[in-house]
Amino acid sequence: MLKKQKPSVYLERATRELVKLPGLGSRSASRIAFHLLNLPSSEVEELIRTISDLKNNIVRCSVCGGISDSDVCPLCTDSSRNSDMICVVEDARDIFAIEGASVFNGVYHVLGGLISPLDGIGPDEINVKGLIERCRNSKPQEIIFALNSTIEGEATTLYVSDILETLGVRVTRIAQGLPVGSDLEFVDGATIARSIEGRVRI
Amino acid sequence: MLKKQKPSVYLERATRELVKLPGLGSRSASRIAFHLLNLPSSEVEELIRTISDLKNNIVRCSVCGGISDSDVCPLCTDSSRNSDMICVVEDARDIFAIEGASVFNGVYHVLGGLISPLDGIGPDEINVKGLIERCRNSKPQEIIFALNSTIEGEATTLYVSDILETLGVRVTRIAQGLPVGSDLEFVDGATIARSIEGRVRI
Repeated sequence: MLKKQKPSVYLERATRELVKLPGLGSRSASRIAFHLLNLPSSEVEELIRTISDLKNNIVRCSVCGGISDSDVCPLCTDSSRNSDMICVVEDARDIFAIEGASVFNGVYHVLGGLISPLDGIGPDEINVKGLIERCRNSKPQEIIFALNSTIEGEATTLYVSDILETLGVRVTRIAQGLPVGSDLEFVDGATIARSIEGRVRI
Repeated sequence: MLKKQKPSVYLERATRELVKLPGLGSRSASRIAFHLLNLPSSEVEELIRTISDLKNNIVRCSVCGGISDSDVCPLCTDSSRNSDMICVVEDARDIFAIEGASVFNGVYHVLGGLISPLDGIGPDEINVKGLIERCRNSKPQEIIFALNSTIEGEATTLYVSDILETLGVRVTRIAQGLPVGSDLEFVDGATIARSIEGRVRI
């Protein structure tokens, strides 16, 4: 085997940084590095500027904990939204997923994590206190839990909803069941069980 | 359908720039944007610095046309390499692919494209002249064509090798045939034909 020559340390370094990004393997990172090399400088500068802006100008909304360009996010300031319905999500990204469905017109609350005793994450490590305070202050009509359908998601939903119920708030969770377009044959038993338990009138 | 809220224009802009990169769809671009948002500033700055260095510090090697951090690339200056064998490639990236195989110890010549009359690319639009000059000046023993196995690659190999043969240089091309580990059943007829034409003694 011959020694492999590396024509450019700069290319090596850029590829090594790119490969750290989620979803990029060494081949796709190298492809992107070469692409950047061949782009006009102005376009690379634009990419750098937007990444830098992203990092320097985005903050957490002081109300819901979602991402925002100002102290309070556009979702929390939008008066056409129903602030009496608060949807509880794990992460700011989940807000984008729910907004993408265009069916929810309430506001959000980002927990910033899920209760996971094995990982040392208890209710104090995530933003449960903020949610309780919001419920005490604004007396919302309904809190909808939209956490992932995992053990941690379940545990967090049950734990936090128990507390909220003592405050007299109506607590719901999003439905579990068959994904739209799915085939019964390929759906796991636990999902089918949930879809039967949660059956609705036609 | 409700109006979708966009919590951050900065996130939108960064995602829009990232989606322009090869191999990234809107989901993976958004995933990377969120990942950058959650990274420590120092790591994002490091990524930005390496991209900026890549763009500002990499040049074309004045001998082979490959990428380099200095006027002449490490491959062309490495005295342990055999400068009597020149491997002709379409693009600087191809050098990395061939170096990755660790079997070639010669030097390279990057054409920077392939002859394609339909796209208005003739021999003068790619670096054929530089190759002829190198052959005249250094009288290499062998020129190996390692162009893609496409119509344009074939046309370029035939056209340029014809010129080089008039200069008395030995011209070869890399073999066409079955990829290692492939199954005859799934290989196309043209490839099988080439592998039979190019059969070698065992």
